[in-house]
Amino acid sequence: MNPIRRGWGCKKVRSFSRAENEEEEKMKLKVYVDRMSQPSRAILIFCKVNGIEFEEVQINLAKQQQKSPDFKKINPMGQVPTIADGRFNLFESHAILVYLACAFPGVADHWYPADLFRRAKINSVLDWHHFNLRRGAMTYVLNTVLAPVFGLRLNPQAAAEAEKLLSSSLSKIESIWLKGNGKFLLGGFQPSIADLSLVCEIMQLELLDENDRSRILGPHKKVLEWIENTKNATRPHFEEVHQILYRAKTRFQEQRSMGGNNTNLSKRLGLPSKM
Amino acid sequence: MNPIRRGWGCKKVRSFSRAENEEEEKMKLKVYVDRMSQPSRAILIFCKVNGIEFEEVQINLAKQQQKSPDFKKINPMGQVPTIADGRFNLFESHAILVYLACAFPGVADHWYPADLFRRAKINSVLDWHHFNLRRGAMTYVLNTVLAPVFGLRLNPQAAAEAEKLLSSSLSKIESIWLKGNGKFLLGGFQPSIADLSLVCEIMQLELLDENDRSRILGPHKKVLEWIENTKNATRPHFEEVHQILYRAKTRFQEQRSMGGNNTNLSKRLGLPSKM
Repeated sequence: MNPIRRGWGCKKVRSFSRAENEEEEKMKLKVYVDRMSQPSRAILIFCKVNGIEFEEVQINLAKQQQKSPDFKKINPMGQVPTIADGRFNLFESHAILVYLACAFPGVADHWYPADLFRRAKINSVLDWHHFNLRRGAMTYVLNTVLAPVFGLRLNPQAAAEAEKLLSSSLSKIESIWLKGNGKFLLGGFQPSIADLSLVCEIMQLELLDENDRSRILGPHKKVLEWIENTKNATRPHFEEVHQILYRAKTRFQEQRSMGGNNTNLSKRLGLPSKM
Repeated sequence: MNPIRRGWGCKKVRSFSRAENEEEEKMKLKVYVDRMSQPSRAILIFCKVNGIEFEEVQINLAKQQQKSPDFKKINPMGQVPTIADGRFNLFESHAILVYLACAFPGVADHWYPADLFRRAKINSVLDWHHFNLRRGAMTYVLNTVLAPVFGLRLNPQAAAEAEKLLSSSLSKIESIWLKGNGKFLLGGFQPSIADLSLVCEIMQLELLDENDRSRILGPHKKVLEWIENTKNATRPHFEEVHQILYRAKTRFQEQRSMGGNNTNLSKRLGLPSKM
């Protein structure tokens, strides 16, 4: 590898100064989220860990607030997470993480390294994530737990296919990106935005029946270690932001122990339409 | 928008020099592709348009060459496109396009602007693409045309759902990213890697029955103009790289006019398992 090609030059170009007057307050970073959505949680944890000042704006997906005309002025796609940094609006969680890492000077390099090759590998993991781990995990959770909450029927065939994709994705993460002695993806000893995005996705499996969760995650010891490493590297924010998920997990467990389904659980949980 | 925050600093760090000896020949960029896959075509067009020297290595997906032990040493995921730049291997087409734009000094800025905000918007389009346009288009083409080629049954329900997602995605592209007078996404007057990726995806609709293709694409005049703009901005390479698709289109049309299905067409077409 030619050393002359190292370097990518992600300039840190945003100041950290506390908003001191009304005009600056208007310019403060706004983060539009529903904490029940895993990409929303990734953005919140990233901001908190890196000391980025922001205002959290709750968009309740269960109440379809993401489809309101006011919110669609900020994100015409009607999705969370979304950010507004002054007059600059941005959606899609990976694009947001990349932007924050590059725009805020206090963000340590390991989150999204300036090095050309390391950054390219992180981009590759993030791109792979969409159609593999995310698709598998999201479809499985929907078709084993969440469908009745949204008035849909559980689809065992879709769940079975999703489980294959999910398990295959976890195996690939383990054998390709968690091999070696590193604590994080790609052999890293400090986390990147890819660790945060993928681990937040896997955390959604907390909503599953414990037997299902153990069957899927149990065989992947390195994945389990990696989740713990990511929690430790981002504490106390990781657990604080996930409190809402743990509460939902408890309620699903109660529902199961009473032998019920999840049809009428949405109001109690305040669950979103997109998780 | 604070002008001090403009700039991202994507250094061009790779030389263009022609390989003059054996050692340099080994270091020449290798691009592993199957031209029947739309992300493979996007990479080839990008390299050709930007004068990047490369060696095209054909990985025949119909023959499952992407699963061979030799290829898995280059990409353990067993996917194309993949690149090997010296000893640096990379997969996922968006990550590859970003890497090439940043590593090769001859690539014009408009493909992946150094400007923080413009780059963030392009990243957002690329991330959105995976679960929207790509998922809709790929699933629709599979379930209306390609399934029998792979020994699968056409699934009209999956096709109907995919058509909704595809049409909705085209509407959003048109109303959000193609509004205004620009010729390309985000109001641009020159194409970015997002234009190339998304247009190459839409080109896969060439394989459809002409009535289906017209029904889906016909209402989206701005999308049709944008496809032409992208072809024109990248000619003659765009059409040259798509020749294989046009030949496949002709064969599917012949098959339909003979009233047959596509079950035994794979050998004649050399069609891939992942398109």
